[in-house]
Amino acid sequence: MSQANSEFPRVVEEVASFVGHVVTTAGWIHRVRELGGLTFIVLRDGTGLLQIVHAPADGPIPALQPEMAVKVTGRVVDEPRAPGGIELRGAIFTVLGRPDGLLSLSLGAPALEAGLDSRLTHAALALRHPAAQHVFRVQARLAEAFRQGLSREHFIEVHTPKIIGTASESGANVFHLPYFGRSAYLAQSPQFYKQMMVGVFGRVFEVGPVFRAEPHDTGRHLSQYTSLDAEMGFIDGPEDVMAVLTRVMGAMLEAAQEAAGQESPLATMPGTIPVVHFEEALALLSDALGEDLTAEPDLAPAHERWLGEWARSQYGSDFLFVVGYPMAKRPFYTMPDLQRPGFSRSFDLLFRGQEIVTGGQRLHRFQDYEKAMMQRGLSMTGLEGYLSAFQYGMPPHGGFAIGLERLTAKLLGLANIREATLFPRDTKRLEP
Amino acid sequence: MSQANSEFPRVVEEVASFVGHVVTTAGWIHRVRELGGLTFIVLRDGTGLLQIVHAPADGPIPALQPEMAVKVTGRVVDEPRAPGGIELRGAIFTVLGRPDGLLSLSLGAPALEAGLDSRLTHAALALRHPAAQHVFRVQARLAEAFRQGLSREHFIEVHTPKIIGTASESGANVFHLPYFGRSAYLAQSPQFYKQMMVGVFGRVFEVGPVFRAEPHDTGRHLSQYTSLDAEMGFIDGPEDVMAVLTRVMGAMLEAAQEAAGQESPLATMPGTIPVVHFEEALALLSDALGEDLTAEPDLAPAHERWLGEWARSQYGSDFLFVVGYPMAKRPFYTMPDLQRPGFSRSFDLLFRGQEIVTGGQRLHRFQDYEKAMMQRGLSMTGLEGYLSAFQYGMPPHGGFAIGLERLTAKLLGLANIREATLFPRDTKRLEP
Repeated sequence: MSQANSEFPRVVEEVASFVGHVVTTAGWIHRVRELGGLTFIVLRDGTGLLQIVHAPADGPIPALQPEMAVKVTGRVVDEPRAPGGIELRGAIFTVLGRPDGLLSLSLGAPALEAGLDSRLTHAALALRHPAAQHVFRVQARLAEAFRQGLSREHFIEVHTPKIIGTASESGANVFHLPYFGRSAYLAQSPQFYKQMMVGVFGRVFEVGPVFRAEPHDTGRHLSQYTSLDAEMGFIDGPEDVMAVLTRVMGAMLEAAQEAAGQESPLATMPGTIPVVHFEEALALLSDALGEDLTAEPDLAPAHERWLGEWARSQYGSDFLFVVGYPMAKRPFYTMPDLQRPGFSRSFDLLFRGQEIVTGGQRLHRFQDYEKAMMQRGLSMTGLEGYLSAFQYGMPPHGGFAIGLERLTAKLLGLANIREATLFPRDTKRLEP
Repeated sequence: MSQANSEFPRVVEEVASFVGHVVTTAGWIHRVRELGGLTFIVLRDGTGLLQIVHAPADGPIPALQPEMAVKVTGRVVDEPRAPGGIELRGAIFTVLGRPDGLLSLSLGAPALEAGLDSRLTHAALALRHPAAQHVFRVQARLAEAFRQGLSREHFIEVHTPKIIGTASESGANVFHLPYFGRSAYLAQSPQFYKQMMVGVFGRVFEVGPVFRAEPHDTGRHLSQYTSLDAEMGFIDGPEDVMAVLTRVMGAMLEAAQEAAGQESPLATMPGTIPVVHFEEALALLSDALGEDLTAEPDLAPAHERWLGEWARSQYGSDFLFVVGYPMAKRPFYTMPDLQRPGFSRSFDLLFRGQEIVTGGQRLHRFQDYEKAMMQRGLSMTGLEGYLSAFQYGMPPHGGFAIGLERLTAKLLGLANIREATLFPRDTKRLEP
């Protein structure tokens, strides 16, 4: 081993730029088919599919079977009938990795036939299917666009502790762990830390895992998911936070659309997302459903779905801001709306009738924290480091959190959040 | 609350582009000084410092004290003597947040006088110091450049489980936690998952927390840190991995330098980083130190330091690749070097005599895993999902991991990794 060298195969996506040239690429044998004396091989890598045509005159090639890892060198030629408009001819194959025996799933079909449970158990194989890969390519672009959108607006990325000393936000559904002779918890969100960091940087974001000891097996919840968190200071109200969210969500959708191809639009998002107050939303629902819902403290999933339909028909929007949720259903750090007693300066962003973002303005005066925590019977012990941030001069601030897997699933029309999670964690699943 | 509006203050960094205009910005009062009948106020936000000059003729302003959060509107004027060449005049202040009483640390001095322990306890205040902020601005740029550099080379970002069913890599220094009636562990690295994902996407990266139940309190180790992980398939050897690392590290240094300012270079990195084999390194050390070290299984910190000096004097490089570490000191998935029995196809990247990156080529055949695990007396139970990946056709592959906090500290000359961690976790510290 001497000097590092930079020669390694081109990814499949790049091959199309080399029509007329001999290139080396690599990937997995996706399909092999004999037709009219020719062998049609489809090669797959993380960037796409490539057709390779082998004629008897090209000389012998190794026996190829699906999921072999191969390196291949050949000439790139225009071929309008091939996927992507090009194919490789006169190819020489080197087999680099062989599957052992029969594969537990067949990847050649347009969709995987195996059930979700089987796909999750055989994740290392099932995720190779182009339809599965596609989900995570879109997901990667969503996260990237979130970060880039916020960086453009001077937000700074932070990394905060996932092991914490005080089960803070709710106390329910928290994972416990022993920590050097003490009791510790896995963070359910970076909420407290991002607020503290507003006092330092003014605007921060974090992309990282959060943990919920979620006892229910639903299609919407997992024990671990990726939270896209943002928090900003010097706001006049939640509208400023919603404006940033609107811009960043627009950038995320654009990136996802680019990854998904421009053929079918993933979502319709107006430049200004319609806004409805929680109280109005209940009035609309009461009218439509013919029952008095005006005293409800929260929106049931069916209500969210109805509001999604309503936003679609009234505004042609897949998105709807519901603002002003009752204080009773929001965490202690939520800023109340003094104009509407009992309601808060918070919001949810619904996408096709499901909450995908939660946010709002927070309290920023230490005295308000003292009062709010006392009213709710919460102890300040263990939270001194967090609460002290409000004694150092903290501006009005707010923020939001997006569940990356839930957004991905909803955007791509996947029924279960597990289909948008590489290795989901739930009450039953701790492997692979 | 009706429509989201996008009017909020400009960050300090942007103000300089508005000479001659009246702008609104916001931040914290960093310093106040009276001089020749004028008041000189320095405003600080997450993007920089701004001088504001108030003359008696401008009318009364509120009593300003350090760390107040304020919004300020004024005219931007050229002023070569002010930091950044501009200042704000005729300013109107709105106080948005007030510190309660005396601050436990004073932020006005060029460096914080408080000791590390006190700074960590009062993190929400201490991190406001420009020198502390600077560390994390550089850190944010390092992580961003890592992701962008790899994305350019077709690596895809993944998010993998931090709660795992089998204490895998070493078994030592692992955090345990109860998980729905089972025993689970916090992941010490995304190693197994990133390898599995090579079989899917070919090239992947992850930026995320890793957890080590590190029992020693040193300046280099923490219970949680941010790992920058990459893994790639279809390599000919570790050289291909080292080539990617060299390019991405170059991009990271460039970004850090940009954030730090161009005055003083942070590091010297040649286009090709010098490479020394572990065996040669021991021979050099034996010669230089006058003792026989040739049978050592690993490099002691003092040896790494000596090699750092050597790379500096021989090649003018702050970086040095040490390759071919003995198999005995590398994990079971490491690819042995068949040309040099006992040695591996692995590498460390030293920066100024300290390891900042570990990487190498991995085994890719299932049979090799069986053999390696049996030789080391490791059980395959619980790792079926991981090991199955090598039964599906896996190409030769390798990767590396960079400790973000350690790199930041080393690059900025910080003695303790805690100075490059917003909220460090160690045997004693679980708060804030």
